[in-house]
Amino acid sequence: MTEKNGKPDENCLEDLQRDLRRFSAVREWDQFHTPKNLAIAVSVESGELLEHFQWLTAEQSANLSADHLAKVRLEIADVLLYLVSLSDKLGVDLVAAAFEKLEINAKKYPVELSKGSAKKYTDL
Amino acid sequence: MTEKNGKPDENCLEDLQRDLRRFSAVREWDQFHTPKNLAIAVSVESGELLEHFQWLTAEQSANLSADHLAKVRLEIADVLLYLVSLSDKLGVDLVAAAFEKLEINAKKYPVELSKGSAKKYTDL
Amino acid sequence: MTEKNGKPDENCLEDLQRDLRRFSAVREWDQFHTPKNLAIAVSVESGELLEHFQWLTAEQSANLSADHLAKVRLEIADVLLYLVSLSDKLGVDLVAAAFEKLEINAKKYPVELSKGSAKKYTDL
Amino acid sequence: MTEKNGKPDENCLEDLQRDLRRFSAVREWDQFHTPKNLAIAVSVESGELLEHFQWLTAEQSANLSADHLAKVRLEIADVLLYLVSLSDKLGVDLVAAAFEKLEINAKKYPVELSKGSAKKYTDL
Repeated sequence: MTEKNGKPDENCLEDLQRDLRRFSAVREWDQFHTPKNLAIAVSVESGELLEHFQWLTAEQSANLSADHLAKVRLEIADVLLYLVSLSDKLGVDLVAAAFEKLEINAKKYPVELSKGSAKKYTDL
Repeated sequence: MTEKNGKPDENCLEDLQRDLRRFSAVREWDQFHTPKNLAIAVSVESGELLEHFQWLTAEQSANLSADHLAKVRLEIADVLLYLVSLSDKLGVDLVAAAFEKLEINAKKYPVELSKGSAKKYTDL
Repeated sequence: MTEKNGKPDENCLEDLQRDLRRFSAVREWDQFHTPKNLAIAVSVESGELLEHFQWLTAEQSANLSADHLAKVRLEIADVLLYLVSLSDKLGVDLVAAAFEKLEINAKKYPVELSKGSAKKYTDL
Repeated sequence: MTEKNGKPDENCLEDLQRDLRRFSAVREWDQFHTPKNLAIAVSVESGELLEHFQWLTAEQSANLSADHLAKVRLEIADVLLYLVSLSDKLGVDLVAAAFEKLEINAKKYPVELSKGSAKKYTDL
């Protein structure tokens, strides 16, 4: 775990989480925001994000126009917003979970075995 | 934009971003991490997350067992990890984008029109 | 394998496949239709299909309005169109594969173990 | 609409549909197979299909090994199985819908405007 100014940064999304709670509360949307529905929303928004890259070559995807990038940026944001809401409903500390998963991945993909390879860990 | 201890928290994922860069660099995976491929990865991981909720009722999804929640937590983490990597490749400040999108959503969904309704903004 | 009028019906999508080939050929779209891109398209269209059910209860999803159903119907069609194109590019007989997978599923999910249960076969 | 041996081929998936109904009925799975859950299943399976192409180049995706292709084939089959089940629940004639959507697409993408272009119809 990393620290910043003596405070762990795992909870760094708490302001966003708090704003999202308010956003949903004043609109009385919590009735729709079951974990199942929020997981659907994460997936639907990921599809909208992916649509922007659908027919691009790898090179084109690394050289988006300013206009295209602005749209992609907001689709990325949508995925994060629902991911934060889902984590909040489930009581998951999203950033702590990400650091933990990264450590797990480091063990699943030892450098010497996975260097330069796109193989799944089960095939290493 | 919110501030915390005099520092904007938009860059709060920078530690995670830095660790992800190193993780990818030592494995020489940047060759695979085109924005297109990372957008695919976000979508694939979102599907794996959704799979956990596939046959659950809304109620069941809000009452996961500890074992089930532990698995879901790591799937959520996977989505965030690829989302951070994609944002990094594109030069997108992920958290700033999320706050901005939330403001846009607040305008698209005025409280008086959207209260208690799951309608899309285009149908309000 | 089932037969109809002495002809196996596995190739029953061949007319659709032929029309799709022409559609793509006259537009010179084969350059974009790599298997990878078509698999992305299947996933993106599935996301658009799912979006229609995102905030509905199970009951509401079984009682769509005529207008809503008409939209859902065309999203379902989009998924099939890309699935047929992908199968064509890969030389896969889509319907034969589906019958074969159904037989595999029948073995993975024996009636006595899976009756009334939504458990994944790995948990039976 | 095309015809084959004097019979329209739109209903050509009816054998598969009938087998799927039996498969689900004997396992008492209809309770889980709401349209919403089946739409989720289509999306989840599409994600599993896409995972196979995630890190491949366009060229590699067109030259799968026999072993890889066999896996991809069964993932494609899974998407079709759930798509047929969903269509059945909604009373949608899947193949007729696909032919109809193809006609709509032909109008949205006139040959002269879309030839050699991957632009979305809204940008033509």
